[in-house]
Amino acid sequence: MRAEPEGSMHDLRHHGDAEVRDDGSALVDLAVNVRSGTPPAWLREHIAGSVAGLAAYPDGRAARAAVAARHGLPVERVLLTAGAAEAFVLLARALKVRRPVVVHPQFTEPEAALRDAGHTVDRVLLREEDGFRLDPGAVPEAADLVVIGNPTNPTSVLHPAADIARLARPGRTLVVDEAFLDAVPGEREALAGRTDVPGLVVLRSLTKTWGLAGLRIGYVLAGPEAIELLTRAQPLWPVSTPALAAAEACVGPRALAEAAGAARRGAADRSRLLTGLAEFADRGVRAVEGAEGPFVLLRLPHAAAVRERLRALGFAVRRGDTFPGLDQRWLRVAVRDRGTTDAFLEALGRALDAD
Amino acid sequence: MRAEPEGSMHDLRHHGDAEVRDDGSALVDLAVNVRSGTPPAWLREHIAGSVAGLAAYPDGRAARAAVAARHGLPVERVLLTAGAAEAFVLLARALKVRRPVVVHPQFTEPEAALRDAGHTVDRVLLREEDGFRLDPGAVPEAADLVVIGNPTNPTSVLHPAADIARLARPGRTLVVDEAFLDAVPGEREALAGRTDVPGLVVLRSLTKTWGLAGLRIGYVLAGPEAIELLTRAQPLWPVSTPALAAAEACVGPRALAEAAGAARRGAADRSRLLTGLAEFADRGVRAVEGAEGPFVLLRLPHAAAVRERLRALGFAVRRGDTFPGLDQRWLRVAVRDRGTTDAFLEALGRALDAD
Repeated sequence: MRAEPEGSMHDLRHHGDAEVRDDGSALVDLAVNVRSGTPPAWLREHIAGSVAGLAAYPDGRAARAAVAARHGLPVERVLLTAGAAEAFVLLARALKVRRPVVVHPQFTEPEAALRDAGHTVDRVLLREEDGFRLDPGAVPEAADLVVIGNPTNPTSVLHPAADIARLARPGRTLVVDEAFLDAVPGEREALAGRTDVPGLVVLRSLTKTWGLAGLRIGYVLAGPEAIELLTRAQPLWPVSTPALAAAEACVGPRALAEAAGAARRGAADRSRLLTGLAEFADRGVRAVEGAEGPFVLLRLPHAAAVRERLRALGFAVRRGDTFPGLDQRWLRVAVRDRGTTDAFLEALGRALDAD
Repeated sequence: MRAEPEGSMHDLRHHGDAEVRDDGSALVDLAVNVRSGTPPAWLREHIAGSVAGLAAYPDGRAARAAVAARHGLPVERVLLTAGAAEAFVLLARALKVRRPVVVHPQFTEPEAALRDAGHTVDRVLLREEDGFRLDPGAVPEAADLVVIGNPTNPTSVLHPAADIARLARPGRTLVVDEAFLDAVPGEREALAGRTDVPGLVVLRSLTKTWGLAGLRIGYVLAGPEAIELLTRAQPLWPVSTPALAAAEACVGPRALAEAAGAARRGAADRSRLLTGLAEFADRGVRAVEGAEGPFVLLRLPHAAAVRERLRALGFAVRRGDTFPGLDQRWLRVAVRDRGTTDAFLEALGRALDAD
C-alpha cells in the first residue's frame, strides 16, 4: 500500500456502460456488473404498477421505513438517494471535509464527486503484492473523510469488517460503499446496520442485484446528524415514485430470500469462472485472489489487444486502466451463468491464441 | 413592487402535496397544480414499457435530442434534470453568483435552494395594487441572478416576454421558470427556444401537463457554457430511464397536439371558475386578474377558516400564506373540469355562508 498525491492520468468518469453502448449492443456484456436476467418479472410488474400514480409527488416515507426495518435501524439513520451516484455528490458537497482520502483501486465516482466539489483528494493505493488487501495503518491519521468499497470494485476483494472499522476515528467520516455486498453470501463483513462505529456512513445500491441501474435508487445509512446534512443538500423529491416502489419491494422478506439465493449461485458461477481462468495461467493470466464480488479482476499480457479481440468475438469486458492503481494490464470481467462463462472462456482462449 | 430584505416568516418548503397527504387522500385535490386524468393511458403504457430495460444504465442522448428539436435548439443548449427541483439546486450551486434576486410571490423552491447553497437572497415583491405585474425597473441593477416564473405560480399572471427579456444584462443570469407555460394556449410569451437574450436560462417541466410529478423529469434551456457548468454539478446518470422515455414521448408531435388541446380546454375551464368566483364578489372574494395558468389566486375574508371548512366539505385548496408577498388572506385553487369546478363553487358558497 502506498500513498499517491492527487493526479489524474485516469479517466475517473469512464464507466462500464460506455463499453456496451452504441456498437456494443450486440455484445455479450461482461463489462457492467448488473446481475443477468434482471429485474425479475415480479419486480418489473411491481414497478410498472406504480406508473398509474405518477401524477402525485413522490412520498418516500414507506420506502424509508422499509429500508430502516431491513437493517434494524430507526428511520433517522436512513436516506434514500437517486442511486449511489447521488450519494457521492451529497457527501462531497454537504459534509465539512478538509482532507478526504480515497482507498484505490475502487469505483472512481467518489473521487470524481469530491474533486468536482472543489476538494483536493489524497489516494491510498492498495498493492497487487498485498493482494489488494487493506492495511488500516496506511490511511493518513489526518484524513477526516475516508472512502472504501467492500467488496471492492474492481478487485472483488472483501475486506474484514473489523479492519474497516479500525479506520474509524473521532472527527472522521468513514464511508463504506457496500454496493455489491448483497451479492456476498450471508452479507459477510457487512457494516450496514452497525451503530457502534463512530462516523460510519454505509452506501447501499439496489442496482446490481436487482437490475435497476436505469431507475436510480440507492440509500445511505449513517448517524442522524449526517443524514440531516445530506438531506438538506438533496433537491426536493429526490427519488421517483417507481424507484421508491422498487426500494420498498427489494428490502422485503421475499426479495431478501431471492437475493440470498442469487448470491449463492453467483459464488458457484464465480468458482467456475476462476477455475476456467486458472487454465490460462501458463499464458500469463492471473485473477486477483479472494474474489467475493460478482466480478473478477484479471492481469494478463497484452490486455488491451485481448480486449479488442474479445469484442470482435462478441464479448465486452471492462478495461482496468481507468482505475487509479491499475494500468493497461488489467481487465474486469463480470460473473455470469455457466453457459455464458463457458462461451467467454472459449473466446478468451482464442483471443490469447491470436497473440 | 417593493424590495424586501431576506427574511423568512414564510415556510419556503411548504408545498401543495402536503395538503393532500395523509388524511387528505379522500379530498378533491385543488391544491396541487397537476392536470387531472394524467398521465394519459398511452403515456402510462409507454413509461411502463421502459421497465423491461431497467438493468441498463440510463442513456439520455435520445431524449436530449428530442427536447432540443422540440425547441429548435442544438443539444448543447439542453440539460435534462430530475424535475425542475433539481435544476434549482444546480443553478444555486454551480453558477458563480454574488447577488441573487427572486421576484415574488412565486414558487418558493428557487429561493430555498439558493439559501441552502449559502446565498443571501434579495426579494422583489410584486404588489396586488399592480395586479402582480412585473415592472422590470424594480429589479436592482446589481443583481447577477434574477429568478422569475412565467406564468407565475401562484398569481397565474403571464408576464409579456418582452418585459422579462428587458431584465437581461451582461453578466447577469436570467432564470425564467416556464413550468406552466405549456398550459398557455399557443405558448404565448414563451422565452424557451430564444437564443437572442443574453444569460437566459429557461426551466421547463413535464410534471403538470402530463401528470409526471412522481417521475422527476424536467429540463433546462440555456447557453452552452451554462449547460456545461450545470452538467458538471449533476450526479452521474441523473435522470432515470422511465423519465427519459417520458421526456422523449412528451415532446413529440402527438404529445404537443394533445397539450395544445388541454391548454385550450384549460382556458375554458378557468373562465368558468372565474365567472363562478365573480358571483362571490359581494362576499369579498377577489381573483387576481389576468390569470393565464392552470390555477387562480384568490383573496377573501377569513381565508384560513374558509379553507378549513372546504376541507370538511371534501376540497383541498392551497394556502397562500407560505408565499413571500402574500399572507393568510390568500388561497390558490387549481383549474379543474366543469363538474369539479361547479362542485367546488357550491362548496365555497357554503363555506362562505358559515362565516
